[in-house]
Amino acid sequence: MLPPPSSSFAFTARCRLQNLPGMLGRLTTEVGIAGGDLRAIDIVRFDQGSIVRELTVQARDSEHAHEIVRAMQAVDGVEVLEYSDRTFQLHAGGKIEVVGKIQIKTRDDLSMAYTPGVARVCRAIAEKPERARSLTIKRNCVAVVTDGSAVLGLGNLGPEGALPVMEGKAMLFKEFGGVDAFPICLNTQDVDEIVATVEHISPVFGGINLEDISAPRCFVIEERLQQSLDIPVFHDDQHGTAVVLMAALHNALRIVDKHLDQLKVVVSGTGAAGVACTKMLLAAGVREVIGVDRLGSIYSGREPMDDGVKLWYAAHTNPDRIQGKLSDVIEGADVFLGVSAPGLLTESDVARMNPNPIVFALANPDPEIRPELVEGLAAVIATGRSDYPNQINNVLAFPGIFRGVLDSGASAITYPMKLAAAQAIADIVTPEELQPDYVIPSVFNRAVAPAVAAAVVAEAREAGLAHPREEPEDPLYS
Amino acid sequence: MLPPPSSSFAFTARCRLQNLPGMLGRLTTEVGIAGGDLRAIDIVRFDQGSIVRELTVQARDSEHAHEIVRAMQAVDGVEVLEYSDRTFQLHAGGKIEVVGKIQIKTRDDLSMAYTPGVARVCRAIAEKPERARSLTIKRNCVAVVTDGSAVLGLGNLGPEGALPVMEGKAMLFKEFGGVDAFPICLNTQDVDEIVATVEHISPVFGGINLEDISAPRCFVIEERLQQSLDIPVFHDDQHGTAVVLMAALHNALRIVDKHLDQLKVVVSGTGAAGVACTKMLLAAGVREVIGVDRLGSIYSGREPMDDGVKLWYAAHTNPDRIQGKLSDVIEGADVFLGVSAPGLLTESDVARMNPNPIVFALANPDPEIRPELVEGLAAVIATGRSDYPNQINNVLAFPGIFRGVLDSGASAITYPMKLAAAQAIADIVTPEELQPDYVIPSVFNRAVAPAVAAAVVAEAREAGLAHPREEPEDPLYS
Repeated sequence: MLPPPSSSFAFTARCRLQNLPGMLGRLTTEVGIAGGDLRAIDIVRFDQGSIVRELTVQARDSEHAHEIVRAMQAVDGVEVLEYSDRTFQLHAGGKIEVVGKIQIKTRDDLSMAYTPGVARVCRAIAEKPERARSLTIKRNCVAVVTDGSAVLGLGNLGPEGALPVMEGKAMLFKEFGGVDAFPICLNTQDVDEIVATVEHISPVFGGINLEDISAPRCFVIEERLQQSLDIPVFHDDQHGTAVVLMAALHNALRIVDKHLDQLKVVVSGTGAAGVACTKMLLAAGVREVIGVDRLGSIYSGREPMDDGVKLWYAAHTNPDRIQGKLSDVIEGADVFLGVSAPGLLTESDVARMNPNPIVFALANPDPEIRPELVEGLAAVIATGRSDYPNQINNVLAFPGIFRGVLDSGASAITYPMKLAAAQAIADIVTPEELQPDYVIPSVFNRAVAPAVAAAVVAEAREAGLAHPREEPEDPLYS
Repeated sequence: MLPPPSSSFAFTARCRLQNLPGMLGRLTTEVGIAGGDLRAIDIVRFDQGSIVRELTVQARDSEHAHEIVRAMQAVDGVEVLEYSDRTFQLHAGGKIEVVGKIQIKTRDDLSMAYTPGVARVCRAIAEKPERARSLTIKRNCVAVVTDGSAVLGLGNLGPEGALPVMEGKAMLFKEFGGVDAFPICLNTQDVDEIVATVEHISPVFGGINLEDISAPRCFVIEERLQQSLDIPVFHDDQHGTAVVLMAALHNALRIVDKHLDQLKVVVSGTGAAGVACTKMLLAAGVREVIGVDRLGSIYSGREPMDDGVKLWYAAHTNPDRIQGKLSDVIEGADVFLGVSAPGLLTESDVARMNPNPIVFALANPDPEIRPELVEGLAAVIATGRSDYPNQINNVLAFPGIFRGVLDSGASAITYPMKLAAAQAIADIVTPEELQPDYVIPSVFNRAVAPAVAAAVVAEAREAGLAHPREEPEDPLYS
């Protein structure tokens, strides 16, 4: 089945049409026959017996876009003047900018925001560096740090190749959380160098969001940074996914009327997201988690056990040391959680799960099993895609979580905070709204980030981790 | 002589006044007697027989501000409810923010700016990293990097203490040059670590502006970074000052009708700015420069010669090996250039210079000699202050210089570019406008940055250093 045309592959084509009856109709018909989805037609200008129009068309993919343009070029009386890819157009010159919050139009503005007035602010902070939280961008500022080693599902694209994702992330931070985030793309993939670099640039930031760093390096980097820095460090590919997964699971369990401590959960894939989701499930009270990697189920004593993460995994999961392939261990499971690769799960696997099975197939862009194959078989299905119901999308978590830690001044993001965030996301879906294809709110639901932030702040306060902002002792300072 | 009240020490005081005739007059009279400069009076609210007003008052310094508040509190029938420092108010929460250039309101927006659409842009860049210049913020983005070791004239304030200056710099970059600049404040002052850190974060940036790093470390750091990176590296305290100094000198020479190659220039102070100004003078064709430090004039063979910079200085200046204190070597000089400390130059020194002496006393905030002491004696006087004519302010240079290198794609800022920038600044002052107290344009002259940028671009093109931007080979990419 071909995917439908989408905005990801939209283009605009500027065409000169002879000013004759039916010309536009012929052109749009050809676009339709070629499978293009015509979204907009604008008139650019009238020009000596012809009309210049701009057509916006969605295609399935790049090759398809080229086909549609060729079809347009073949129409008698139509000349395609130029055409361009809307996604690339949108990226031209980058997606973010750094702007002043106040205008500098007069000498007085300059004297206060810059020299000589700024000197007093600098001295006040030098005396007591915590004051940077109230007198600089620090309290609202997050570094989005990557080494480009695991960009989206695309692999090692390097720091420049990762930058469009980090810029997009910075936009989402501002749009949904009011957080000022800036991309830091490192041209090293050495763990020691990454840790040292982030430590060195940390004074400007109130938090560090690690992004698209490959496992198992991401675990070490996060742990070392969280130990050495006094600001929160959060690897979103791990914890963002785990928080949203947990939110969806809360609501799915309400539908099937099961409880966390009774579940058997099979986790397919033990990369960054798989490990983080497992830790989250355990922290939430799940007792039986079985992880499966390329070699089959992970159990204590399995050989070879190639890294420390797998050793941890074997020691903390699969209490009965169940051995076998995915299709073996899936028998009798309540929840399948896939953070692995397309097509690993079959209909027969789902049929052998416990009654009312929950299937979260999060591999992107192609899930472990196509939802249409298990409709009616699974009680609740979720994916990472926006074109199926129940999208597990990190955008639901990270803006609100960082808003919460920045507002509370907490120096780390704890499991209780992450669990509170998951519960807050789940609770956006009211009991009346809850249904199998609506267990998780939309990424555009504006109520989510404030609710998450409030839950994180409340948990930070309760745990005594909130640090009230430094307030000036003397309103005229010195 | 006391300095006048200024906006750097403005405060707002919220006062409750009994609603009786003459109350406001009594209060403002006391502000005036205390030496405060009343700038604004606003009514906040009427309140049970009283009026709450907010007064904005400028003071000389913090102690003076406290005195004025005490005088206000002493007025019968007036209660000062609260008061706060306007400069600190303006800094609350920081002075810059990171915002998206496009809105993310619909799923289509998200699909193009973030996943899945962004993946194609990432792949296109990974194939050819130069494409980051057209498809990300890189081509418009500058890191403002400091280690906080020499903040303004205040010394080693550390990275947090330096942040308000770097934020101010980022504002000026955007306001005057349209450049997106972001502060990087390092919590290391080790040269190797600084170089490695900047190298590691460089992929996001199209240029590096070093700032407030102490000499002689700043020379080494700049040189090493410029060698290892393919983007321009510019230590503004050195070259920004040198460019603006050179612009002012061009115009001062037009007034006194002297030429660069005939001048004897005495440079007081051989820190970052002094060394850079000297190199600029030599590059521009000045033959006789004599540097003076704490030990007197620098000459080849002087002992002790503590670092490599001084050895360079001795080898390239003072061809006649003139020895002596500042007051000795100033005899017969055409230009005094001070980038050192307050009060080092005397009236008698200036009297013994050549006819029509030029005195640039740039120590901040207190110059090497107070301009009023040599009015009539010196032909042209300039300082670093905004309250005297002819302010030598880096803001005239760095926004336009970076605009020019980013637009041209040049990978370094050469002496010919800096000389072209200086000439462009000088040429803003027309022959009709030129006079002894107007040799340099105002920092608010909006014609300066575009003129500087154009001069830098032209020079880059002429020297073959301009690199045209990567343009897509195929408008639909792949």
